[in-house]
Amino acid sequence: MTIDVAVFGAGRIGRIHAANLARQPGVRLKYVVDVNREAAAALAEQHGAQVADVDGAMGDASIGATVICSSTDTHADLILASAAQKKHVFCEKPVDLTLERARACADAVAQAGVVCMIGFQRRFDPTFSALKARVEAGEIGDPEMLIVTSRDPGAPPVEYIRHSGGIFKDMLIHDFDIFRWMLDDEADTLHATGSVLSDPAIAEAGDIDSTAVTIRTKRGRLCQINTARRAAYGYDQRFELLGSAGMLQAGNVRPTEVTAYSKTAVSSDVPEAFFLERYRAAYALEIAHFFDAVNHGKPVRTTVADGMKALELAEAATLSWRENRVVRLGENAA
Amino acid sequence: MTIDVAVFGAGRIGRIHAANLARQPGVRLKYVVDVNREAAAALAEQHGAQVADVDGAMGDASIGATVICSSTDTHADLILASAAQKKHVFCEKPVDLTLERARACADAVAQAGVVCMIGFQRRFDPTFSALKARVEAGEIGDPEMLIVTSRDPGAPPVEYIRHSGGIFKDMLIHDFDIFRWMLDDEADTLHATGSVLSDPAIAEAGDIDSTAVTIRTKRGRLCQINTARRAAYGYDQRFELLGSAGMLQAGNVRPTEVTAYSKTAVSSDVPEAFFLERYRAAYALEIAHFFDAVNHGKPVRTTVADGMKALELAEAATLSWRENRVVRLGENAA
Amino acid sequence: MTIDVAVFGAGRIGRIHAANLARQPGVRLKYVVDVNREAAAALAEQHGAQVADVDGAMGDASIGATVICSSTDTHADLILASAAQKKHVFCEKPVDLTLERARACADAVAQAGVVCMIGFQRRFDPTFSALKARVEAGEIGDPEMLIVTSRDPGAPPVEYIRHSGGIFKDMLIHDFDIFRWMLDDEADTLHATGSVLSDPAIAEAGDIDSTAVTIRTKRGRLCQINTARRAAYGYDQRFELLGSAGMLQAGNVRPTEVTAYSKTAVSSDVPEAFFLERYRAAYALEIAHFFDAVNHGKPVRTTVADGMKALELAEAATLSWRENRVVRLGENAA
Amino acid sequence: MTIDVAVFGAGRIGRIHAANLARQPGVRLKYVVDVNREAAAALAEQHGAQVADVDGAMGDASIGATVICSSTDTHADLILASAAQKKHVFCEKPVDLTLERARACADAVAQAGVVCMIGFQRRFDPTFSALKARVEAGEIGDPEMLIVTSRDPGAPPVEYIRHSGGIFKDMLIHDFDIFRWMLDDEADTLHATGSVLSDPAIAEAGDIDSTAVTIRTKRGRLCQINTARRAAYGYDQRFELLGSAGMLQAGNVRPTEVTAYSKTAVSSDVPEAFFLERYRAAYALEIAHFFDAVNHGKPVRTTVADGMKALELAEAATLSWRENRVVRLGENAA
Repeated sequence: MTIDVAVFGAGRIGRIHAANLARQPGVRLKYVVDVNREAAAALAEQHGAQVADVDGAMGDASIGATVICSSTDTHADLILASAAQKKHVFCEKPVDLTLERARACADAVAQAGVVCMIGFQRRFDPTFSALKARVEAGEIGDPEMLIVTSRDPGAPPVEYIRHSGGIFKDMLIHDFDIFRWMLDDEADTLHATGSVLSDPAIAEAGDIDSTAVTIRTKRGRLCQINTARRAAYGYDQRFELLGSAGMLQAGNVRPTEVTAYSKTAVSSDVPEAFFLERYRAAYALEIAHFFDAVNHGKPVRTTVADGMKALELAEAATLSWRENRVVRLGENAA
Repeated sequence: MTIDVAVFGAGRIGRIHAANLARQPGVRLKYVVDVNREAAAALAEQHGAQVADVDGAMGDASIGATVICSSTDTHADLILASAAQKKHVFCEKPVDLTLERARACADAVAQAGVVCMIGFQRRFDPTFSALKARVEAGEIGDPEMLIVTSRDPGAPPVEYIRHSGGIFKDMLIHDFDIFRWMLDDEADTLHATGSVLSDPAIAEAGDIDSTAVTIRTKRGRLCQINTARRAAYGYDQRFELLGSAGMLQAGNVRPTEVTAYSKTAVSSDVPEAFFLERYRAAYALEIAHFFDAVNHGKPVRTTVADGMKALELAEAATLSWRENRVVRLGENAA
Repeated sequence: MTIDVAVFGAGRIGRIHAANLARQPGVRLKYVVDVNREAAAALAEQHGAQVADVDGAMGDASIGATVICSSTDTHADLILASAAQKKHVFCEKPVDLTLERARACADAVAQAGVVCMIGFQRRFDPTFSALKARVEAGEIGDPEMLIVTSRDPGAPPVEYIRHSGGIFKDMLIHDFDIFRWMLDDEADTLHATGSVLSDPAIAEAGDIDSTAVTIRTKRGRLCQINTARRAAYGYDQRFELLGSAGMLQAGNVRPTEVTAYSKTAVSSDVPEAFFLERYRAAYALEIAHFFDAVNHGKPVRTTVADGMKALELAEAATLSWRENRVVRLGENAA
Repeated sequence: MTIDVAVFGAGRIGRIHAANLARQPGVRLKYVVDVNREAAAALAEQHGAQVADVDGAMGDASIGATVICSSTDTHADLILASAAQKKHVFCEKPVDLTLERARACADAVAQAGVVCMIGFQRRFDPTFSALKARVEAGEIGDPEMLIVTSRDPGAPPVEYIRHSGGIFKDMLIHDFDIFRWMLDDEADTLHATGSVLSDPAIAEAGDIDSTAVTIRTKRGRLCQINTARRAAYGYDQRFELLGSAGMLQAGNVRPTEVTAYSKTAVSSDVPEAFFLERYRAAYALEIAHFFDAVNHGKPVRTTVADGMKALELAEAATLSWRENRVVRLGENAA
């Protein structure tokens, strides 16, 4: 049996998901939807698919699943439409920039009984998931402290930042998800601070480019996250988890294993350039996981609820940073 | 324009090449040929191809290229048949276990004017080819000394060893090719010695399981190769090239970048399990390279001549080991 | 010309300083002072020195310098006595557990015109000081973010903790000094949190064993410090400094450079066991630095003022942790 | 009880041994002997010793041990004189450039019943000796293959090379000792080849600057040694030992543990500059071992017999290289 799929968004992440799903046995890319018709046509042609508009794709009863890679402000509508049409949904993060709309999505997919998976691809990274498996196997005893380093090679255009929801929702959302996944615990209090160190225009846009977040969990565990929009040496994605019986680190991935000895240094490659390269395997594995869940009725590893929890942390961090104070999670939940 | 391809051999390496070529744009897998009809049928079905026998596949004028992954003793016949039918050929190493037949193949493909590429996949490994490019860019000055470490996780069945042509033709053939490629030079003299250290049955089969080879090139450069059929920690594929201005090392590839700190050690993964995993990317890249050469009339990186040169070195090494003496390359060439 | 020295405290750190100063040209260990006369006698004998009491040592005009390695509560008195006798002083950290007494010491040594150096030995560690020199040479541009990891192999006895002044004054005092030294900047605001994760008795003693501290400097730079009293794999002393043009990391030091490949892992040594081993070279270098400053009238790298600044940060961290809020440095300074 | 010691040779290695033995409890440096009186005087003064000539030092019955660091051609005479005077001897490698004289030394010290230790300091290197201990503990099963990399940062003056006995006696003598120590086995056959790749003047002096040696032991184990007089990146001292159950590597030692991330590379320090730095700890440990053997009647780890065995291998290698053939150890022993 073959599932026909519609991909929404023919940008770089859409192209990656399209190529990966085209390699899944039992999956056929039928439609590519994008307001940029040229981009849609190019991607469709590459995989023997057709161009459609939203209504056309959503209205086609043969489409069993949607893959949403369009801009963030369209996510919620497309999830709701998919649910209404009883189509399974894979949606890039974030679900939405507001918790209300994210909750509406969660309700809709639950009622429709469709699979809805959020694209926290890091949970599928071979290094990260191997580490998680070892934690679960008890290798380091009780997890106690998580240190997350998450730095981009360079800041996006200020215009992008202006509509991004702020660095905590745009960039740390992944790190907040890693925090919850790795510690298997929820935040009790959170403190966030930050600075603009790379480009004053980011401050003018009301955002920051460097952050330092500390979370204390309900069980008293500690998590520190440091992020920067710009690391001169590239994309830096590491974390380490200290447990009562040992420690596990997830290191960067290098393009090659060449080591060079010169007069002055012993050197190896800088990390993979950016997320498309670093998480290449993770993107392939998450799409396989999604269709495996769809085909065999298995639970997905990254749910809408996970997306909402990460968003809550991003909101708490934004508040903590703005008011320069410790925030208790749920303190505004009256 | 699409090239129709016949794959000979549906074993593990045939399956890898079939999957990789099925992903090439402009390439269609038409036939799978194997004396094991079940294996052929399974592989053909997976890629929407048909099962054929040798004559059927070779006799079909629409087949533009053959990919030969069958047992070594069939290589030369299939190359000759491909050349006779003006089909381009990708053939797994070695061309043949004898230099005479390899030479006949070289002549045939030259006369037929078809592309013929030998599967020395290591030349396409991202780490190895990046290192080579840096050597060519002059990073380490003149190459002077090459140290090659090449160890398998475990010996093949003795029955396999008995028909393998001996460890130098079966296993070191790749290392001899690396030697020629990395130093861009030819052997002048060669010394080989070895032992049976893992399994006495290998000695009974007339072979050894551990070797130490030293080559001095025409330009006075030195190369040492050490190989073992059995490394307890897995597949070990490293080399280092000392030059007048520095040194470059090619290290092993790990499945993940997890580092673990326990009471007693800081540890990371053992290398990728065996050649199918270690050279996964190389296999994909060499097939892409082959079809690129076929489609655009470009030269291939690994020719029949390369295959013959590696075979000459393997023969010299076998002689050196048997007679426990230094062998001059071409000393028997009357 | 030879300087005669009196060492106060014949415990493990006193023994290290005694051995190191005995190797300095132009320095002679004359007295060892310790309430434990046996320990004093043993150490004195080893270096051809004599046992004295405080008055005897302080009253001997031939003593040019004192080295204070006794318990924390004696530091201030011994500094004041040394200053009164115009003796140069090397004193282990901390100056005192209170800022008032530390200030009195600062005033006394300034008035006496004697050299007074505080034993922040980490500033003399070859790795740390090489890193600092590279930062100063501009290698990573402007420093922006400092991440400090500081974990002990195991908690001291609870009885010790009870009189230690708390984890921030006892353990993080070093990390606060590293922060000031590495960023060459002062704290503006500080947030600290923590937990008891290893031993409930520590909570009963009113302290914590795991901390997460975030400092934002006056120039907007960020620093995160994570500490634990107990790391199963040993003594973990690392930091990394992200700058506008690159990043520098200070890694752990291993006892040997042995790497082991087993069936399951590639492993190397855990870090040097504890501070006495890890900072062996630093202890030797700081004593050499002290006598070099004394002999040649050079400034010392770690002053009483540095000790006071570190203490201020420890007090702010204690307050932040106790009240679970962000603390502004100097907020209580009327 | 204190042993009075005479050091012969006030060059760089003499100065190192003098400083190390001055730190041994129960050891007193009494005489420094050197044809260069100024050098002798400077070293003597630094340690409160006196200058003497050979006869004066050897004739003083209070001298319990000699430490021979003078030029190679004086070693045998000084060992013989020490034995005649019943003084224990520590002598730098090699014992002599000829086996005959080395044998005479061995006989003399045996008859005199004095301790005679040869300065193969690598056996005392913390990394190497830890590795050896792990091999002996069975960690890698039966040792099977040893790969030794031994490269100097630069060639010595040609004038030195001319009188050095050739690269195999001058440089590889250490590697031959490592081979015997690590495999705990003796050579059966040996093959050596080499080239002049750095400086034609070395060829004119009748020597080579790059070598590749292969040894097959009596038990069938294999060893490959590669050496170069000039490595652009510094002093390279590594080896690895493959065993039936795993592998152990001894890596280089770095001056610091700083890692730098730049736009183009992740880099760490090049290895310690040369043998004086790399083997600093080893030199201290071997002198302590010598006096421990002297004081407590323990056997020494590196005997004259070891020195002779290494010399035999160097002679066999020289012969193999000159005649370009495999040499059987002892083939000339009539």
